[in-house]
Parts: sequence; structure tokens; C-alpha cells
Amino acid sequence: MAYFNNIDKIKYEGSESTNPYAFKFYNPEETINGQTMEEYLRFGVAYWHTFTEDLSDPFGVGTAQRTWDRYEGMDLAKARVEAAFEFFEKLNVPYFCFHDVDIAPEGNSLRESNENLDTIVRMIKDYMKDSKTKLLWNTVNNFTHPRFVHGAASSSEADVFAYAAAKVKKGLEVGKELGSENYVFWGGREGYETLLNTDMKLELDNLGRFYHMAVNYAKEIGFDAQFLIEPKPKEPTTHQYDFDVASGYAFLQKYDLQDHFKFNIEANHATLAGHTFEHELHYARINNVLGSVDANQGHPLLGWDTDEFPTDLYSTTLAMYEIIKNGGLGRGGLNFDAKVRRGSFKPEDLFHAHIAGMDSFAVGLKVAQRLLEDGVLENIVEDRYSSYKEGIGKDIVNGTTNFHKLEQHALGLEGISQPSGRLENIKAIINQYLLKTFAGEK
Amino acid sequence: MAYFNNIDKIKYEGSESTNPYAFKFYNPEETINGQTMEEYLRFGVAYWHTFTEDLSDPFGVGTAQRTWDRYEGMDLAKARVEAAFEFFEKLNVPYFCFHDVDIAPEGNSLRESNENLDTIVRMIKDYMKDSKTKLLWNTVNNFTHPRFVHGAASSSEADVFAYAAAKVKKGLEVGKELGSENYVFWGGREGYETLLNTDMKLELDNLGRFYHMAVNYAKEIGFDAQFLIEPKPKEPTTHQYDFDVASGYAFLQKYDLQDHFKFNIEANHATLAGHTFEHELHYARINNVLGSVDANQGHPLLGWDTDEFPTDLYSTTLAMYEIIKNGGLGRGGLNFDAKVRRGSFKPEDLFHAHIAGMDSFAVGLKVAQRLLEDGVLENIVEDRYSSYKEGIGKDIVNGTTNFHKLEQHALGLEGISQPSGRLENIKAIINQYLLKTFAGEK
Amino acid sequence: MAYFNNIDKIKYEGSESTNPYAFKFYNPEETINGQTMEEYLRFGVAYWHTFTEDLSDPFGVGTAQRTWDRYEGMDLAKARVEAAFEFFEKLNVPYFCFHDVDIAPEGNSLRESNENLDTIVRMIKDYMKDSKTKLLWNTVNNFTHPRFVHGAASSSEADVFAYAAAKVKKGLEVGKELGSENYVFWGGREGYETLLNTDMKLELDNLGRFYHMAVNYAKEIGFDAQFLIEPKPKEPTTHQYDFDVASGYAFLQKYDLQDHFKFNIEANHATLAGHTFEHELHYARINNVLGSVDANQGHPLLGWDTDEFPTDLYSTTLAMYEIIKNGGLGRGGLNFDAKVRRGSFKPEDLFHAHIAGMDSFAVGLKVAQRLLEDGVLENIVEDRYSSYKEGIGKDIVNGTTNFHKLEQHALGLEGISQPSGRLENIKAIINQYLLKTFAGEK
Amino acid sequence: MAYFNNIDKIKYEGSESTNPYAFKFYNPEETINGQTMEEYLRFGVAYWHTFTEDLSDPFGVGTAQRTWDRYEGMDLAKARVEAAFEFFEKLNVPYFCFHDVDIAPEGNSLRESNENLDTIVRMIKDYMKDSKTKLLWNTVNNFTHPRFVHGAASSSEADVFAYAAAKVKKGLEVGKELGSENYVFWGGREGYETLLNTDMKLELDNLGRFYHMAVNYAKEIGFDAQFLIEPKPKEPTTHQYDFDVASGYAFLQKYDLQDHFKFNIEANHATLAGHTFEHELHYARINNVLGSVDANQGHPLLGWDTDEFPTDLYSTTLAMYEIIKNGGLGRGGLNFDAKVRRGSFKPEDLFHAHIAGMDSFAVGLKVAQRLLEDGVLENIVEDRYSSYKEGIGKDIVNGTTNFHKLEQHALGLEGISQPSGRLENIKAIINQYLLKTFAGEK
Ligand SMILES: [Co+2]
Ligand SMILES: [Co+2]
Ligand SMILES: [Co+2]
Ligand SMILES: [Co+2]
Ligand SMILES: [Co+2]
Ligand SMILES: [Co+2]
Ligand SMILES: [Co+2]
Ligand SMILES: [Co+2]
Repeated sequence: MAYFNNIDKIKYEGSESTNPYAFKFYNPEETINGQTMEEYLRFGVAYWHTFTEDLSDPFGVGTAQRTWDRYEGMDLAKARVEAAFEFFEKLNVPYFCFHDVDIAPEGNSLRESNENLDTIVRMIKDYMKDSKTKLLWNTVNNFTHPRFVHGAASSSEADVFAYAAAKVKKGLEVGKELGSENYVFWGGREGYETLLNTDMKLELDNLGRFYHMAVNYAKEIGFDAQFLIEPKPKEPTTHQYDFDVASGYAFLQKYDLQDHFKFNIEANHATLAGHTFEHELHYARINNVLGSVDANQGHPLLGWDTDEFPTDLYSTTLAMYEIIKNGGLGRGGLNFDAKVRRGSFKPEDLFHAHIAGMDSFAVGLKVAQRLLEDGVLENIVEDRYSSYKEGIGKDIVNGTTNFHKLEQHALGLEGISQPSGRLENIKAIINQYLLKTFAGEK
Repeated sequence: MAYFNNIDKIKYEGSESTNPYAFKFYNPEETINGQTMEEYLRFGVAYWHTFTEDLSDPFGVGTAQRTWDRYEGMDLAKARVEAAFEFFEKLNVPYFCFHDVDIAPEGNSLRESNENLDTIVRMIKDYMKDSKTKLLWNTVNNFTHPRFVHGAASSSEADVFAYAAAKVKKGLEVGKELGSENYVFWGGREGYETLLNTDMKLELDNLGRFYHMAVNYAKEIGFDAQFLIEPKPKEPTTHQYDFDVASGYAFLQKYDLQDHFKFNIEANHATLAGHTFEHELHYARINNVLGSVDANQGHPLLGWDTDEFPTDLYSTTLAMYEIIKNGGLGRGGLNFDAKVRRGSFKPEDLFHAHIAGMDSFAVGLKVAQRLLEDGVLENIVEDRYSSYKEGIGKDIVNGTTNFHKLEQHALGLEGISQPSGRLENIKAIINQYLLKTFAGEK
Repeated sequence: MAYFNNIDKIKYEGSESTNPYAFKFYNPEETINGQTMEEYLRFGVAYWHTFTEDLSDPFGVGTAQRTWDRYEGMDLAKARVEAAFEFFEKLNVPYFCFHDVDIAPEGNSLRESNENLDTIVRMIKDYMKDSKTKLLWNTVNNFTHPRFVHGAASSSEADVFAYAAAKVKKGLEVGKELGSENYVFWGGREGYETLLNTDMKLELDNLGRFYHMAVNYAKEIGFDAQFLIEPKPKEPTTHQYDFDVASGYAFLQKYDLQDHFKFNIEANHATLAGHTFEHELHYARINNVLGSVDANQGHPLLGWDTDEFPTDLYSTTLAMYEIIKNGGLGRGGLNFDAKVRRGSFKPEDLFHAHIAGMDSFAVGLKVAQRLLEDGVLENIVEDRYSSYKEGIGKDIVNGTTNFHKLEQHALGLEGISQPSGRLENIKAIINQYLLKTFAGEK
Repeated sequence: MAYFNNIDKIKYEGSESTNPYAFKFYNPEETINGQTMEEYLRFGVAYWHTFTEDLSDPFGVGTAQRTWDRYEGMDLAKARVEAAFEFFEKLNVPYFCFHDVDIAPEGNSLRESNENLDTIVRMIKDYMKDSKTKLLWNTVNNFTHPRFVHGAASSSEADVFAYAAAKVKKGLEVGKELGSENYVFWGGREGYETLLNTDMKLELDNLGRFYHMAVNYAKEIGFDAQFLIEPKPKEPTTHQYDFDVASGYAFLQKYDLQDHFKFNIEANHATLAGHTFEHELHYARINNVLGSVDANQGHPLLGWDTDEFPTDLYSTTLAMYEIIKNGGLGRGGLNFDAKVRRGSFKPEDLFHAHIAGMDSFAVGLKVAQRLLEDGVLENIVEDRYSSYKEGIGKDIVNGTTNFHKLEQHALGLEGISQPSGRLENIKAIINQYLLKTFAGEK
């Protein structure tokens, strides 16, 4: 049976198309920089926002109208799998991602939850045989249930730590079973409400121990996925431990985990932490820990994680710029951790939203690629730092100088002349590239 | 003599031009909607940021390299006038704006300050005879000097109130002398640091009295400029009285000033107040108080007024959409209350920045106009509210119903079916319009 | 039967008590300024946060452990009434507040919902006969149900407007039936997600019409409660219409509603709007529209409405200062629109939290009263504005001057000497009052 | 001669004193926890805010009225030294801190600047012989001058890197000469305006090289001060590299500098980064990198570094709690990196402000000490994490478990019972401690 009856497979129709069910910029087969767009962008659908989400918010119940909502319990879980693979095929998307509870309901016991999970995992595995869509990453939800109220791996209760471990153990097995490319750890309740009742050191030490056990177990079962931490600064927990990539990187180094983890960077989490999306990508890239991306955007005037579908072309362009410079995302991808607005409650809005996001990243890819081909920003940077290519600058970079020599150099300077940073001009050039990249296309 | 020696008049060269000293999108003579771009956009140069500003910030002295900085005192003021009119002509801009202290230095007394002002005003008036550039608005700076530390019209000291009044009196005379289209009141220190020592009621009452006296004096001298209040929520004063357009509108109504004032809306002030730029424009438009615009943009991650040159094409498009719907800006204009970054300290950066801003608003104008010509958003709105065109909806709008009839109607409803808000799809359409509007241009 | 079995009536035991189930500072019978604390503070319990709330958040299901949760449907609603009046009595609180859906479940039709409501209202009325606890205010929830997804009185659908009106009509009848002192309008979904699909003018005009119909209906049925608007700047709707008191006041004036409405000011809504709590109270006070208070506090580092129980003594002191200056709250009160943290899930936390809040406002009352008795801040203000008591200052206030006279005055000034604002010293004094007010108490 | 003629030495007079020139809570000789308050709190005066600052802001020139402002150039610098030591003595403060340019003006060359510095350093050294006030830390200002517009150690210009090195070299020599306890590195311009023109990797690598050279040079000259990095997230540079303690700690680990640096934590920088002050102190403490404190506070509704004098007793209590748990500040101290408000322009406001800050931290010390003596929070934490003392919890902490064993444990659990976090109750207890600690004092 079909869950999206009136919608056909989404095809690329070009930038002049007025068909709302067509890609205008994302052409999966178009080759950019030696790879197809599909290979480059590695889009993933987030199971939770697309098939499980009901669009409730703190002041309102769900509004989502979904054809599978006539079912309940395991039947509902199965209907969602059917709907999901229909959606993947119609959207023509190469990847998907899920938490355990997105695909199968929790049972009355851990054992029953695992059985539910096994049932649905088997069904998904079957569907995957006939589908091109693969698993970008999976994870477990260690934050929704009341047991995680005080944390999971950083809980104040040892039993909860154990429960969280059991769930991750199962998650690793599921990932292996479905051939997942990555496994994600999102902090959820890992953090604290107030220092007044919190032993932060014990909690962080336990978190470190937890991750080491996860690494060991994945090795034991031969699950070779890339491990990813997804930083977020606040919400649900007032103070979350993985505030941003830098704080996560401090943690990895302290607990000697830096060889085992990279980061899954979400745009909206970046801005909540006070950083631009591209800052987080860049910082991760130069530290060799850029793993994967949760592609969405926040509202700059709202203080919570709005998880909007990404449509800001400045943001997609600068993100793709970092990703191309990174040599692509490797085993990672662009997962739409994004939900339609509560007012966009129709099933077709799921298509509109993904098309909007995929087209926006396709535009970003093409504009970024043109910027790189023309060396626009790279030439600016090359010029700007040219003083480090010779003389005292070269000595600095080579580590062959010291404060004595530098002081001598400084004493000999007759004023220092520096070029302008030219930001306004650079922004105008970016606008020109944005507006002209698609000029020639039909 | 020339202050911008190596720069010729900026001309429109089209979207493919790589000449940094050319407009790519702003073609002053191009006709849009029955007016030339120049007539529609009514661009103004802000004297303070362009000729007086030194690019200092709270942690660093000025960096600006300006050819007129070899002068001092009144000679500097005169050199700035020369530089300004050279700049206006080379940029081909129809308007400029200033505060009193931007154009002439304060003297040792109010009398001397006024004499300085008279000297420069005469010089400017002479230059204006040979220039197409007119005065969009003037104002007085009632915030920089220590005497305004506790406010100006809302000062705790009556002497300061009187001093502020004397300055505004002179400002109105200067505006009349130079044929200014508008006169702006920006709150500056009008607000409070702490309630602990503040009589807010007296301060607001005094502010109301001040504005009435200004209205009366302008009438007395026959200065018929549009009066404008420029809202800003904080900075310099912790709590400013004209927080946003809505709070300014509450003030105007309470003090019976709504017939005499409109608003000068600054993009960065809007976002500091928690609103989008287009929200403020829209709110002012539907209340018939949209007067003029300070065209700039803020950094969404910084909590102060960064006054960046506007380059975000989403923002310029949505702003121009409101302005077109408003029937244009009337006697108002688009004043670049924007400064180059501290790192953009070269004289040529002033041109790059204005070109970036003017091109960005030209793009906004064209994209907005195409959206309106195609009725894209207007059709969406028309459809969405169509239930108010007949039946109970029409009764509501006509005021011919009441709670009894509405309850009867509600009791008879069998469920309410509503369309999706379709935000994701609408955003994709906006992107398409943005990317394709310039496709056909050379 | 009892729902809070192990908890006795909360009594005042004084500031040295270590009994967690006792007031340390709130002594309902103590007389301050000619009234008992109970009469002055007029505390109210919010039905929704105390009896209906399950402590879910966007990332987690409810954690609240409530003895009445073994019931369902109307039985649950009835159990809540029993629990509520037990709680009111044990807490010894004079008021409570509710939305319609807090007390009775919605039925399958408006008619059935109203019947449910009638049943519970009758039960509450019965309980009120034997209770000292009265209804501070009621309201209706026009935001949770999917029908309100695009607004209620500002909905894009006329049917929804009618439905909202029917609910408010019923709410007014319920308020009359239970002798409510006030009736509150909280904007909820009254606002917009995006201007791209919104007709703000029609929505605001409709809102104005709605309020007039409510005023008329209340008059018709002889319900003489004070009408209150509760401002909130965002959440759930991205842009809410009643952003703050000032924007609400602009609305009231424009739609000629200022004689019929005051404001219900919530601390956390104030800070989300960029204002201090005391700013909103003060602004309302001097405009004679301070009606009632939702007593809570936000987390200064979180961007959403956390609705914490108020414990910040600076905030309670400055709030009570405004309230005393207002001559008390009239028919309004201090309603705890506050919820225990998700980690405070035990029934006894409801007592701890209310005790914390009541004690904090009692401290605020006493410290503010002492500040007023000693004239601490009033003397500072009196001194600071003394120049408006004579000479030119008196002329300004009396409206007997103009720009000519003020200029003459300013020209004659030989420098202006002003006193320091002394904020640091004032803050030290506030601290001293805070620390010493309870020094002498047992 | 005297610069603060009418002010005598500030003495402790107790909590009932109404003398504005007396300490009410800070009694330097009172013994707490085996140390005098003076030894515990180690207060420092910031030379820049107290003697060099003119109270200008981005919209206004300086307002500060200082008796030494009649001098110029080196005479002014010398007068400031005299004023400073008079102030230190009258305030009875054990430490001070400075940047190079606070104490001596820059000359026309680096050589001349160094000579100016030498002159003043000699003078300060002389004054220190007769003063109890010692140097807590010094630093150099590598951000105000235009040469640092694009950074200092992270500049795009090698010459600027050299200049910055020469200044730090001199700073280390000055620190040694004056027996400084610490040497501070504050990032100032170390960061970037935009990624569009920035090579972040080169800049960070250079910063790492710079710090290693500083470590080496200090060792070479036998300057054994504690090195401190002061994090700040933004301002002046849009994106600063030392965003918070965590990102600084990531940097130290990556560049193998963690044995040589601790952090100087500023309250207002913490909150700008999205953290509480106590979070930053706690995080540093448990990672053994808590070095020193810049004691101030921000305005929670303003988005920039307001550097207010600390008066919030909640903040000082929680800060002192961390400091006591840290075993004190070691060689660090509590430096008032705080400035009087622009409206507090009188010389006596400098005393009022420091008294307010010193009293506030004295209160914090005493309340925190009482909380610790009574084990209030420590008992809560001990209870809350007791499950890690035995059984599976002990295995987790000891590292003697794994995912297999944890899963077995989890499968055997029959529901998990957890205690409430009790935040509301804990906050009420904190209030009680705050209000009652000074009850018994005169
Ligand atoms: Co995510
Ligand atoms: Co998110
Ligand atoms: Co402006
Ligand atoms: Co501005
Ligand atoms: Co409320
Ligand atoms: Co609230
Ligand atoms: Co500092
Ligand atoms: Co600071």
C-alpha cells in the first residue's frame, strides 16, 4: 500500500520549474568536482522528524496529519517502515538515520524493548535489500524516558548508567546488523540542571568510562562505524556537557578518546552555542574531527533549537565550502535533523521541506565549488598571510625563532603597513557568485 | 582638491562585471514599477559613519585611514564637506544625513557651537547648489557629550533639558536652511541605567513635552519636514524608551503625538529588540507610521549594534517588499547607517561598502517587485484568509456579530479543516526567485 | 481521601526553622503597612502547573509522580479538584487560577466540552463554599488544540475565530459563576510564524474586534471582573502580538480598549522581551495598567520560558517595591505561574516550591517596605530630580516654556554640574537592607 | 599630595554602619577557615578601570572626573602611580593588576615605549617598598593599537606577531621586576572577524608557538609566575579563540601547554559565553586549571561585557563556594576587572564601587563557608551519588565492568527508583543561609 498516494518520484526539472514536487537545483546525477551530487551531498532523512514526530510543542499537542497514524503499537512501527521506504524512494535519497525508539516502541522491560527493536530491524533489513537507501547512522534515545531524568551515562544513579549502557550495546549491534556507516552519541540529558546538587567530575569521568566501553564493545563485535559526538549547548539540560566542538574536543583529549571519535555538527546547535555553523565545521576540519552534519537551521531571534529545514543559501554555501575543503564528508553525510513547522502539518509538507533543503544544499555545493574553482577566497587568504612565507614569518612557522629574535625584529620595524580585511567587498562578491551561478541554467 | 584620487564615478556595469568600483545590480536609471531605481531607493550616505567615524571600538582606537585627517578643528570640518561632496558625486547618491556634531565641532559654548555649525551649514548649502545630492534628514547629537550622561530631553537635570532643546531648536533651523526632507529624533541617552534612581514617569512626560515644543517650533519657522523617531532597545542606555516601533507608537498615542511623527526604522535596532527588520517595517506600515529606513544589518550572534553594511539579500528583499507595499518611502529614504568593519580601514572600503549595500537593495527591489508582479505571496495570503470574505468571517470583519452568534456558529461546526501554512515551500520559492531574477541579465 | 497524606498544614515557624514544610518568612497574619501579609501578597496557585502539568519537555515525557494519576478522564478531573482544595488548604493560600482545559477535559464537541466544564465548575463551587480559597482569575486555553495552530482570535480561519469566541464566552460565564476577580487573555497562538503568509493588519483588527465583543458580553452578563492581557514576546508563536506591556498598551490605545484592560505581568515573559520584571511593573504602574502578576522567574542563560518558581530575592524585592508603590495589586494577585523542574517530580516538591516562592515574596515585601519606610530610594529620586521643582525645571513641567525660552536659558549656562548616579553605592545599600531586615527575627 | 583628599582609610564598621566609606561585611582581619579574610580573598584593584579608564562608551566621550587629569603624558602616568598607591592604602587592598599601557603611554617607537615603561616601573617599585600592596598580575595590551587590528599573536602579519612578542617579552621582564604572582594572557584581538578571509589553523598554530616561546623566555629569565589565559567569547573580535575555559583547555591540550597555564576566569565573560560564573570556576577546578578570578558581573539583558562591580550575593556566594572547594586561589586573587557606570563619574564612586564589591565577596565567603561547615550541599551530593559507592556503581567507577555486565545488570532491574533533584527546596535553603548568616552580627 502507499502512504503518499498522490506524489510521484521527485525528479530534477531545473531552476525554472514551477512544479512543487520537483528539484530545481539538486540534480543527483550531475557531476561536480569528479563526483555526482548524490555522492557528494550524501543526504539523509531523519526518521524521528519525518515518521515519528507529531509536531507538538510545549504549548500545543501534535498537528501532523500522517496516513500511518491509524495504526498503533508495533503495527504503527511497521507502517512507519513501509512509509519510510516509500518516502526514501520517492525522494530518491541515499541515506537515513534513526534512534532506537523512533523505529520501535519501548516495551514493558528492556528485554521486550529489544525484541520490538529486533522485529523492526529485521523488517528494515529486508526493505534495505530492495532499496538504494542505506543507514547513515543510528543512535539510541537515552533522554526521553523518565529514567533518564537525571542523565544517562552521566546519571546520578548507577542503575541508570547500566541501563544506558545496555541500550547503547544494543544500538551498536543494530548498527552492525544494518551496516551503519556511523554511530552517533547525542548528549541529551548528559549535563546538569544545577551545580547545587551535581558532582560534575564524577559525571564526566563516568561519561569517559562509558565511551571507552562503547569503543571496546564495537571492536569486540567488529562494528567498524565512525563514532560521532553531537554537541549541543543547552536544551533539554540547562548545562550540557558537549557544549560545542571545542568543549567536546577538550573532553576527547582529556579522556584519551580523540582517536575514536569525530563530531556530528548540527547547524542549530552551533548557533545556540554562539558560533556560526561554518565556524564549527571549520574548527572541526582543522582539528581533523569533522565527521558528519545535521543539516538544519535555527531562527536567529529564538533561543531554542527550532530545527528548521535549511534554506538559507549563505549558510549552505559556507557549509559546503568547508565540506569541499575537508575532501567531502567521508563516511558522514548531510542528515536533515529538521522538522516541518507545526503549521506545515500535511504529508506533502514533508516533501516540500526536504526538496527545499536538498535544493538549498545543491545550490551551496555549486556556489562553493565555483568559489573554489576561481580561488576567490583562497587567493584572499593566500595574499593575506603571505608574510609567513618568508623572513621572520617563515621562522615563526618553522619554530626557528624566539622572543629575543622577535624583539630584535620588532625594534627594527619602521611602522607596520597592513592591507584592509575588505569584508564588505568580499560579501559583495559572494552575493554576485550566488546570483550568477545559476544564470546560465535553463 | 580630491580626497578619493584614484576612484572615478561609480557606474552600473551589470551582474557579470568584476570591476570592484562598479555597480553590478544597482542601475539608477532602470525603471521599476514606473520609477527609476534612484527614485525608488532614495539612498542616503550617513555623514557620521563615512566622514567622521574613526572605527574605534571599546577595545581599540581608530584605524580609519582618511586623507582629510591631516586637518584639525574647523579645517577638518571643512575638508570633510569637500570630501563628502566628492564622495556623493562619485557614488552618485541622491541623499545624505547628519547630526550637528558630525559636520561641525562643538565650541566652548553653545553660542560658539552654533557659530561653527552656521559656518559649515553655509558651506554645505553652497556645495548643494552644484550637487544633485539633497539632505534626507538631519538631527542633533544629544548623547555624546558628558552633559547628556543622565539623558537629554529625559535628563534628571532641567538645565540639560534646556540645553537639549536649544540644540534641537538649532537643528530644526539647520534642517529648514538646507531643505531637509525629514528631521530625526534618536533616543540616544533617552532611557535609564537603573530604576533604582529613576523617575520614569517624569522623564517620559518631559519627553512628551519636548516633542510638542519641537512640533510647535517647526511650525513656527515653517519647517515642514516629516518628524521621525528612531527606535532602539538598548545601547548606549541600558533601557531605552523607544524600544521598538510598538513602544514608540504607544508613546505617540499616549502623548497625542501620532499626527506629527513617523518612525525611522533601523534593521539592527529591530533585531536587538527581538524583531526581524521586516516585522518592524510591516508593523509601521499597517499603522501608517513607516517614515524612513536606516539600512544596515547586525550580526545575529553579537548582542550590540554592529551597524554592518547590508548585504543579506533575504533581508533586503523582504524590506523592499514592505516598502513597495507601502507605496514607497514618501519623503523618507534608505540611509546607510552602517560603518565599515574596523579591519576595513582604507578609503576605498567606503566605496566597496556602499556599492555592496546599494547593489543589495537593488537586488531586493527587483526580487520583491517580481514577487509582487507574480502575486506570489499576495495570492498565498488572499487564499489563506478567504474565509473572512463571506459568511461568519465577513460578519466578523464587518462588526455585525457577537459572542452569541459566534457560539451558535461554533456549536454547529463539524470539525474545522485548515490548510497548511506551507512555510518550507514558500521559502523554496523565495530562493528560486532570488536565484533566477538575474539569470537573464548580462 | 487525601492526596498529600504525609503533609500537614504549612505554618510559619520563623527564619531559623529547619522544617522543610514550614514558612520561614511568610507569616500570613503579620501586619505590614496596615495589611496582613496574606492580604498584601494575595498568592495564587496555578492549577495547570500544580495539578495538570506532567513535567514533560520537548525532549522527554512527563516525570511527575501524582497520586491522582491513577484516574482517567472526568474521574481524573474530579480527583484533581479534591487534590487542589487539599493543597490550597494545606498551603493556606487565598487564591487559585485556571484555564478551562486544566480543570476539565475537552469532549468530542464544543457542547460536550462545555458539559464537562459545567460538571467540574459545579464541583469547584461546592468546594469553594468550605474553603477560604477564591478564584483570582480564570481564562481559556485557546492554544493547545490543533484547531488553534494558526491562531485563535487572530486565526486565518473564521471558523476558528468563532470557536475561540465561544470558548471565551463560556470562560466569562464560568468566571462569573465562580466569582472570579479577574479574567485573563494570554496570547498563546495570537501572533505569527512568518510574515510570508500573514495578514497582520487583519489579524490585529480581528483581535481588537474580539476584545470588544468580550467586553460587551461580560457587561451583558454582569461579570464585573478586571480584564487582563498577559504579554509574552515569543513561544509558542515565533512573533507574538502582545510582545510586552508597551506593545500591548499601543494596541489598547489604537483599538480604544484602554478603559477595559490592564496587564497581567509575568516575570519570565518580561525577561524574554528584553526587560527586567520591575521595568514591566513600573511601566504598567505609571500608565495605570498594572493589574496582576504571574510570579515566576526565568533562567538568564536560557532563551525560553522556564517558568521557575521565584526565589531571587533581588527580583522579589524590586517587584514588591513597585507593587507597594502601586498601592497594592487591587483585585489582582501574585499567581505562581511556575512549575517545578522536571527533576523535582515528587508530590512534596510542589510544597517545597510554593513555600520557596511565598517566602521569597514575603522577604521581598518586608525589604521593600523597609526601603520605603526609610525613604532610601525615594530620597535619592527626590534629590536627583529636584531641579524640576523650581525655575526653568518647574516651567518645563508646567508646560509654560518653549524652545525660545529654553534656548535663552541654555545660552546663559556656565557649564552644567550634575551629581553622580551612584549606582554602585545604591546597590550596596540594597544588599545591606536585604541582609539586615531579618537580623532581629528569631 | 593627595588625590582623594576627603576620604580616609576605609575601615570595617559592621553590618549596621551607615557610613558609605566603611566596610559593612569585609573585615580583613576576621579569621575564616584558618585564614584572615584578606588572605582568603586576595582582592586586587584593576589599574585600567580605576586609574586609566575615562568612562567613555561607543556613544559617548569620557565622563570620569579625576584629580590627576590635569596632567599629560608621562606626568599623567606618574600622577596615576601616586593616586594608585594612595587609593590602595585607603582601600587597604593587598593586590593590583595592570597592562603595560595602563601605567605608561606608548612612545613613538617600541624602544621609547619601553623606556616609558621602565620609568614608571621603577617608580612603582619604589612605591611598593612602602606599601603592603603587591602585584597580583600584569599583562600587555596587544589589542588597542591599530597595529593589532588583525590580531597580535594570531595576526595575519608576521611583523605584528613579532611586535606582540616583543611586548610580551617586556611584560615578562616587568612582571619579574615587580615580583608579580601571575602573568595573564587575554586574547583581545586573538580571533577573527570573518572566516571569509581567515586561516584559522595557521593563526592557532602561531598562537601555540607564541605561548611556548613565552614559557621558554620566562624560564630563561627566572620569572616563575603562574601563567594564565583569560577566556572571553566575543568582543572585541567577533569570534575569539579563547571562547570559554573548555575551549581554552582544548587548546592547551592540543598544543601541549597544559602544564604551563591555568585560567583567569571573569564572571562577565562566563555569562557572555552562555555559562554561569560558577560553571566556569567549577569546570576549571575539577580540571585543576583554576588560577585566578576577574571579579565583576554582567547585565543579564545586555549582550556585551558591561564589567559591572560585583554585587549579586548569589553569584559571590557560589563563586566563593568553588574557591573554598579549590583550597583557595593559590597565587591567584580576586581582581576587580570592573568599572563604575558612566553615570558614576565622581572620584568617590571608585571607593563606593570597590567597597560594594569587597563587601559582596566577603558576604559570599561567609555564606559559602557556613554552607560548607554545615555540609548543606555536600550532603546532598553525597546522598545523590551514593549508588556509585557500592555494587555496580562501584564497578563503574573502578573501571571493572563492561557493556556485557552492565546489560546483565540492566536486564535484571525491576524499575529504577530515583530521588527528586529538589532544586526548589535547595534554593530556599540558600536564601535562608543568605538571610541569616549576618543575623547575629552587630
Ligand atoms: Co541533531
Ligand atoms: Co537540533
Ligand atoms: Co540609525
Ligand atoms: Co545602529
Ligand atoms: Co503566565
Ligand atoms: Co511563562
Ligand atoms: Co577581565
Ligand atoms: Co570584561
